[in-house]
Amino acid sequence: MKDTTYSTGILQYIPFLYVIWADDLLSASEIAVVMRAIKEDSLTKEEKSQIENWLNTKKPPADETIKYWKTLIDKSHIKLVESDSYPLSAFSQKFANELTRDTVPELNSHLQSIEINLGIQPNHYHHLFDVEIIQEKSSNLYDAQKIDELLKGENAGIINQFRAYLNHPVFKWEIVRNKDEFRNKVLGQVKYLAENGYGALAYPPQYGGTGNMVLYGNIFENLIYVDGSLAVKFGVQFGLFGGSVYNLGTQIHHDKYLADTGKANLLGCFAMTETKHGSNVRGIKTTATYIKETDHIIIDTPGTNDNKEYIGNALHSSIATVFAQLIVNGKNEGVHAILVPLRDEKHNLLPGITIEDNGYKLGLNGVDNGKIWFKNVSVPRENLLNKFGSIDNQGNYQSSIKSPNRRFFTMLGTLVGGRICVAKGALSGAKMSLAIAVKYALNRRQFNNDEKMQEELIMDYPTHQLRLIVPLAQSYVYHFALEDMLKQYANANEEERRKIETQAAALKACITWFANNTIQQCREACGGKGYLLENRIADLKNDIDIFTTFEGDNTVLLQLAAKGILTDFKKEFNNDNIGDTLKFISTQVTDTLITFNPLFTNKYDKEHLFDHNFHQEAFQYHTRRLTFSAAMRLRGFIKKGLPPSHSFLKVQTHLVALGKAYATQLSYELFNKHIQNIPDENLKSLFSKTGTLYALNSLYDNAAWYLEHGYISANKSKAIRQRIERLCTELRPHVNVLIDGFGIPEQCLTSPIYKNDRQLS
Amino acid sequence: MKDTTYSTGILQYIPFLYVIWADDLLSASEIAVVMRAIKEDSLTKEEKSQIENWLNTKKPPADETIKYWKTLIDKSHIKLVESDSYPLSAFSQKFANELTRDTVPELNSHLQSIEINLGIQPNHYHHLFDVEIIQEKSSNLYDAQKIDELLKGENAGIINQFRAYLNHPVFKWEIVRNKDEFRNKVLGQVKYLAENGYGALAYPPQYGGTGNMVLYGNIFENLIYVDGSLAVKFGVQFGLFGGSVYNLGTQIHHDKYLADTGKANLLGCFAMTETKHGSNVRGIKTTATYIKETDHIIIDTPGTNDNKEYIGNALHSSIATVFAQLIVNGKNEGVHAILVPLRDEKHNLLPGITIEDNGYKLGLNGVDNGKIWFKNVSVPRENLLNKFGSIDNQGNYQSSIKSPNRRFFTMLGTLVGGRICVAKGALSGAKMSLAIAVKYALNRRQFNNDEKMQEELIMDYPTHQLRLIVPLAQSYVYHFALEDMLKQYANANEEERRKIETQAAALKACITWFANNTIQQCREACGGKGYLLENRIADLKNDIDIFTTFEGDNTVLLQLAAKGILTDFKKEFNNDNIGDTLKFISTQVTDTLITFNPLFTNKYDKEHLFDHNFHQEAFQYHTRRLTFSAAMRLRGFIKKGLPPSHSFLKVQTHLVALGKAYATQLSYELFNKHIQNIPDENLKSLFSKTGTLYALNSLYDNAAWYLEHGYISANKSKAIRQRIERLCTELRPHVNVLIDGFGIPEQCLTSPIYKNDRQLS
Repeated sequence: MKDTTYSTGILQYIPFLYVIWADDLLSASEIAVVMRAIKEDSLTKEEKSQIENWLNTKKPPADETIKYWKTLIDKSHIKLVESDSYPLSAFSQKFANELTRDTVPELNSHLQSIEINLGIQPNHYHHLFDVEIIQEKSSNLYDAQKIDELLKGENAGIINQFRAYLNHPVFKWEIVRNKDEFRNKVLGQVKYLAENGYGALAYPPQYGGTGNMVLYGNIFENLIYVDGSLAVKFGVQFGLFGGSVYNLGTQIHHDKYLADTGKANLLGCFAMTETKHGSNVRGIKTTATYIKETDHIIIDTPGTNDNKEYIGNALHSSIATVFAQLIVNGKNEGVHAILVPLRDEKHNLLPGITIEDNGYKLGLNGVDNGKIWFKNVSVPRENLLNKFGSIDNQGNYQSSIKSPNRRFFTMLGTLVGGRICVAKGALSGAKMSLAIAVKYALNRRQFNNDEKMQEELIMDYPTHQLRLIVPLAQSYVYHFALEDMLKQYANANEEERRKIETQAAALKACITWFANNTIQQCREACGGKGYLLENRIADLKNDIDIFTTFEGDNTVLLQLAAKGILTDFKKEFNNDNIGDTLKFISTQVTDTLITFNPLFTNKYDKEHLFDHNFHQEAFQYHTRRLTFSAAMRLRGFIKKGLPPSHSFLKVQTHLVALGKAYATQLSYELFNKHIQNIPDENLKSLFSKTGTLYALNSLYDNAAWYLEHGYISANKSKAIRQRIERLCTELRPHVNVLIDGFGIPEQCLTSPIYKNDRQLS
Repeated sequence: MKDTTYSTGILQYIPFLYVIWADDLLSASEIAVVMRAIKEDSLTKEEKSQIENWLNTKKPPADETIKYWKTLIDKSHIKLVESDSYPLSAFSQKFANELTRDTVPELNSHLQSIEINLGIQPNHYHHLFDVEIIQEKSSNLYDAQKIDELLKGENAGIINQFRAYLNHPVFKWEIVRNKDEFRNKVLGQVKYLAENGYGALAYPPQYGGTGNMVLYGNIFENLIYVDGSLAVKFGVQFGLFGGSVYNLGTQIHHDKYLADTGKANLLGCFAMTETKHGSNVRGIKTTATYIKETDHIIIDTPGTNDNKEYIGNALHSSIATVFAQLIVNGKNEGVHAILVPLRDEKHNLLPGITIEDNGYKLGLNGVDNGKIWFKNVSVPRENLLNKFGSIDNQGNYQSSIKSPNRRFFTMLGTLVGGRICVAKGALSGAKMSLAIAVKYALNRRQFNNDEKMQEELIMDYPTHQLRLIVPLAQSYVYHFALEDMLKQYANANEEERRKIETQAAALKACITWFANNTIQQCREACGGKGYLLENRIADLKNDIDIFTTFEGDNTVLLQLAAKGILTDFKKEFNNDNIGDTLKFISTQVTDTLITFNPLFTNKYDKEHLFDHNFHQEAFQYHTRRLTFSAAMRLRGFIKKGLPPSHSFLKVQTHLVALGKAYATQLSYELFNKHIQNIPDENLKSLFSKTGTLYALNSLYDNAAWYLEHGYISANKSKAIRQRIERLCTELRPHVNVLIDGFGIPEQCLTSPIYKNDRQLS
């Protein structure tokens, strides 16, 4: 077929023009890129003017013209080869050759430049053409192994060893429905880990460890890939119990218990929560009364429902760190931790101790949770973990921290590392479920269109992309954020730890919720297959669920974070000085700090929407504005005579919103900080894109708020929504690499729909 | 203490003024109500002018004045008694008496009128006073039993009998971890129900039924309270299998199978889904080839992965309704249903049949799901369920529905009743989890304020109220909507059923998602307690999860609904006449229909925000606007030569948004239609409030969209958010009654935290 309507120069642009207009793919600012390429091409003046005419956004080509282009393309019988380096440019050349019977000698570099600068990819337009179906699951632009190395960071060597080690049959996944069998299996795994030195990692070398808290976190997050119960039991034994001995105890306790704990020769539990006191730990009822005469401490559960509740490891342990109100000389010195033996060498309960099994749970049935009651149980004085408060030889209470409030929060502060690990563990759950759902979507086909026999890959559905690619991008942001936070925590002094406490509270809440939502999306994205235990998403869903309420209920943590923000990380926040703090905020966060540049309100070209500074400014504005308004409202209530605690109650939902806004801002800041230092420019640009998707999605989640405050215009809000969908299609060719980049050990991915060994005929 | 600053007339208003200003409780329009009451009170001119002065919203009383009122109130030592009929008026009288040493003879009716008209309730302000703690769980304004009667509707009598019947030990809830034991238990329950006539309910009387589809739905939704597996197995046996025989078969099939099916003497399954074809049923691969010579039909599974998948009842059944491509005289007549025996009397598989257990699932482990393969299985011609297509004695295919497309959708349409029941079942899961979480929140206390020893009820936390009271209100809206829809369906002709199909698709998707979100909120609201199997939320969560993807994947259903809306319920929608349909919409839905009254954009007084006409108009605008813009976008793509199927793909997320908007609008319309007819004005006003909460919450969920389109102003958006929180506190005293109003059989509510037998000391 020979067409004489257009010159060769014009013809080679027709496929581009068709893609641009048939699909409404490009925004005005992007069309400018095309214009520039044309200007530099060796076309005649008439050709240039004709093509520029077709690129006028104010007067787009007539529908008939576009249809005519399509006819030309169809009649050319040229096929698009997706695996070409520049598929659209290659297509255009063949197309122009065919129609003019000319031979355009080489690929037009201007076309290539358009193709690469605009990121037009076959999956954007391949439905417009009669495509050679050599569909690739993934582009080869990025290298999964390099991504994985970045994610592992400094501990890559040991993490690699550990992942290989997980190949041992003891870690083989199987369905165990009976809780006692399951618990024994998990206990065996914990002991095996301990024997190989993985339990003591965070302890100092003299107790068999490496003193590397970050590495401990890395091990913990990898254990989720094996089994949630294993990770949690591991965390209870080495992190909570061992951690309490290490962080709250002194040398005498370390010497006596730490090595055995790390080797799992001594199994312990962390008995803080009570049936009637979960979030409000300060209100626990268990008493620890020091008796001068015997130099012993008596542990007692006053009421039937003041028992310790939901204590992990309760059925296997021989000792517990018990949190109780310490009473010395008749004075309540507040909550302290005391080591209380539970069982003798034959595993029989000691006198005065009652333990009940908590029974079956939604998930984590490999963890032995139980309730514990103490009936006048006597332990020696030195069992008090006395780093922050001790009883001296004269039987008097001593503490270097005078304020009981501050003492309590200092003790709790040592648990913050665990909170970061919990978020990391939840994130592993999200990653693993994404791995399963994305691989499934890259193989599963459903519904065909009118033109071809083969059904569509479900990964190519826009709804499916929103569902899976957005959380995939978010996972990368959260990964780097948490890794950075844990590193900071590991190297922090006490003052810095207080700041990290606020940050960790916010991140833990948002990331555990994110993980649960993601796992749910993945379950649904796999349909009935996702519902089968063999495909693993079900267990992840049930195991990670509790992460939203344990180690601090998310709603409570967000309020804690908000209060931390209100003090501007500077002052201790309690009811005494609330007035001062609020006054301080009202002077610091003045109107000038919470105003914004109105010129940006209606700016929504690609460059602006992709600008990380814009994202960061928007997040900061959100946090600042909410901080300011919360402070103003609180001040208003207090000035009117409302008690502070009730003033806080009145702005509770406001505080929760503030905590969330802060988590969004913080995650993005930590992520960007990390991304700056990536030497590989190629990967940096990939991560920059996942970061942008995270940011635009977060902005859109709060679009109503930004619109209410005039921070973004209606058009900008719409543009953000469109960009999110567009970014998903841009990342679509890279999802396979992004999944493999998580570095989940292959032997842990046992799901048939991941392995794809039964699914495809 | 005697105070001489204020007169008695003024003093009695001080507590009201204090509540109004200390709490910023009232909007300008509400203050007008107070003004009116004052005008009518027998106060002196000076007193009136003073009080009116204090009610000037432009110039509120000074903080010092408000603080002084608080001092007066504190010094009076009067206690607020929450159980008084008019607690604030009674308080005010005692307060004025105390301070003036006067005796105000009787309660001031003007104060009472303010109190009742504004709906000021003790839980709004009791923290402002030194309250007598006689906290009631609930007001006695409404009667739970009356609510329950309304919910049950016409079938109340049989439903009551059925609920009593569920007291039988066979229905006792217990944890059964082994799937085979669990399945046998559930099979026993199904048989017991069948023996007592509950299986055949929807069939005609001659087959042991009542022909009452609505009653069938009522039984189904109540069975969820016993156990999810039971409800689903019941649905498979009597609804899907029995329903396919009844709806797709003719007299010969009814006579032969229906009575035995209803009695569960014949167990059957519904074999539609295949491993490779779930949502795209039209693409199933199983073939049913008619062989003239033998007058038999050969059922065959062509490829290894073309097996029937996830078929409920597969391990217990002796027969299946198999959906297959019917081939007669070498021509594929499309998907038809054929009865295929699976097992002999000894329960051995028949030749050519292979069945595999699907194994353990996230939930519903009492249902025996399996895979089925057919290897040249021969069945007589009369096994074809031939209501819509048959093979005559000459071996020729016959059908009164000429279009294969329409024939297929007519067959599928008979399943719509099941889809409504699925939504009803999911809603029961939400109700039951709300019952557990709300009762827990009415007993659970956590954190105390500075003034009192007793900790706060968690039900009094604003975050908790948002979490539980919003879905509680939504549950009532959805209940009435589904009840109405099922009634319509039961009485509909074929044309009406097509319309209901669109509606049911939208409601099923939104309500099953709503149920899952609600159950998740309830789990978290109960903390660790919610995680224990004994408290039942865990099972509800796992059982209801699959409701989002079975009986039609929600995302697919929303697109189906959107396509239904696009045809404006008038035309059959297929790719042939898509152009016409879209043109039709563009002429029908003109700009005038999607404009709105700009005067309302910034109207946000209480009366307007509570106006059901406002809500309905907003929902309609949302649906219409999305319909219009989807049609315009589709038309644009098609005019440019994009194939229709790809045009639809390009607006997929748009269609999903449209489907959701439509479900919101429809639920509210159906709910309001029902509420109009409630004779009890008291209850009507309660439901009107739950409806308003539903409506405002739905509006706020889409606030970004409404703001983008200028339908609401920034101030209105903020006002809506505030009203949602306020409505939650207004409904707070009635949550107990609203929960009891669900009428969940007491014996099904076995959760210790519901029964509260261990929780409180």
